[in-house]
Amino acid sequence: MELLEEKIRTEGCVKGQGILKVDSFLNHQLDVALFEKMGKAFAKRFAGEGVNKILTIESSGIAIATSTARYFDYCPVVFGKKVVSLNLDNEIYSSDVYSYTKQQAYKIMVSKKYINKNDRILIIDDFLANGKAVDALINVINQAGATLVGVGIAIEKGFQEGGALLRQQGIALESLAIVDEMSVEKGIVFRDQSEKK
Amino acid sequence: MELLEEKIRTEGCVKGQGILKVDSFLNHQLDVALFEKMGKAFAKRFAGEGVNKILTIESSGIAIATSTARYFDYCPVVFGKKVVSLNLDNEIYSSDVYSYTKQQAYKIMVSKKYINKNDRILIIDDFLANGKAVDALINVINQAGATLVGVGIAIEKGFQEGGALLRQQGIALESLAIVDEMSVEKGIVFRDQSEKK
Repeated sequence: MELLEEKIRTEGCVKGQGILKVDSFLNHQLDVALFEKMGKAFAKRFAGEGVNKILTIESSGIAIATSTARYFDYCPVVFGKKVVSLNLDNEIYSSDVYSYTKQQAYKIMVSKKYINKNDRILIIDDFLANGKAVDALINVINQAGATLVGVGIAIEKGFQEGGALLRQQGIALESLAIVDEMSVEKGIVFRDQSEKK
Repeated sequence: MELLEEKIRTEGCVKGQGILKVDSFLNHQLDVALFEKMGKAFAKRFAGEGVNKILTIESSGIAIATSTARYFDYCPVVFGKKVVSLNLDNEIYSSDVYSYTKQQAYKIMVSKKYINKNDRILIIDDFLANGKAVDALINVINQAGATLVGVGIAIEKGFQEGGALLRQQGIALESLAIVDEMSVEKGIVFRDQSEKK
C-alpha cells in the first residue's frame, strides 16, 4: 500500500537491532484517516470471504481493527487481553506468547462468549515480526473451533520469520507494507507488492 | 444517549461491589457502529471548541477515541501508555494513577512529541468512576501547557466521586450515560439527561 509505505519512509525512524519506530502515526499517536484507508485495503484483499468477526490484541491493534470493521459491515471486533499471570478459568481461551521486544512472557485471553465455531475470523495487527502474537490468536481460534479466514497486518518485518512461517502453513497473510531490509545507513527497502495495488 | 442506555440495560451485567460488566460491546468485544454514534454525540456536545487532538488511555479508550476522531476532522488520537515502572525520560510526560479495580498503582506516559502548548485536547475514555485515570491525563495536558477542552466519557458511575470532582473544577464533562444507582435487585437507574438529546 503506497500511502503506508510513503508514511513509513517519511515518518518512520530506523533504530538499531531491527527496531522501526512509527509511533507518530501507528502505535502511540494514531492517524485514523490512514487507518480507514488501510481498513478499505484489507476489505478489498479479503472480499467475499464471509468475515464476520475481527480479532486483534491490545493495545496497538485495536485502533486499526476498529477502523477496519466499518468495511466489513461493522462486524464485532474482539481484542485479546494481555495478562502476565492468569488464574485459568473455564470461561476463557488463553494462549502463551513470548515478546522479544519486551523480553517477557505473557498470556493472551479471550472470553469464550465472544468466539464460537460459526465465526469466520480475520486477525488484524499493527506489526508482524516473529509472529508469536498472531500464533497465539490462531491458537485461540482453533480452541474455539472457529475458522481463520486470514491475517491482515499493517507492517511486516520481512527479514524476520513470522510472515514466512504463516505463508508456509497456507494461511492467507496480507501485509500492507513489507520491510525486507532496513538500516540506519541504507534506509528502508520494501518488498514489491505492486500487483496488489 | 438513549441508544447507549438501552444497550447497557440489555447487555450490561451488574455484579456486586459497584461492578458493571459491559464487555459484550464496550471493552472486550467492541460494537464499532455504536462507537461511531457515540463519536457523533461527542462532536455535537463539543462543537465549535476547536478540538485538534484526542487523548485517551490504553486499552479500552482507544477504540472509542478512534471512532470519535472521524467526527473531529480526523484529528490525531494519542493514547497514554500504562507502565508499572518507568525509567523517567526527559522526552516523556508521566503521571501516577491508582487503579481501584486492579488494586495496583501504575504510571501513564505520553511522549512530549505528541502534545504541545498549541493543542486543544478532548479526553475520551470508556468509564469514569473515581476519575484517577482522567486526573492523570489532565496532569499530562497541564505539564505540556496544552488546553483541556473537555472530557467525553461513555459510562459514568454517578455514584462514585470522579464526575462530581471534575464538574466542581469547572471542567466540561460530558458522559453519554450516567449510572446513578445499580444493584442486582433493582437493576440500573440512569440520570435524566433528556435535555441533551
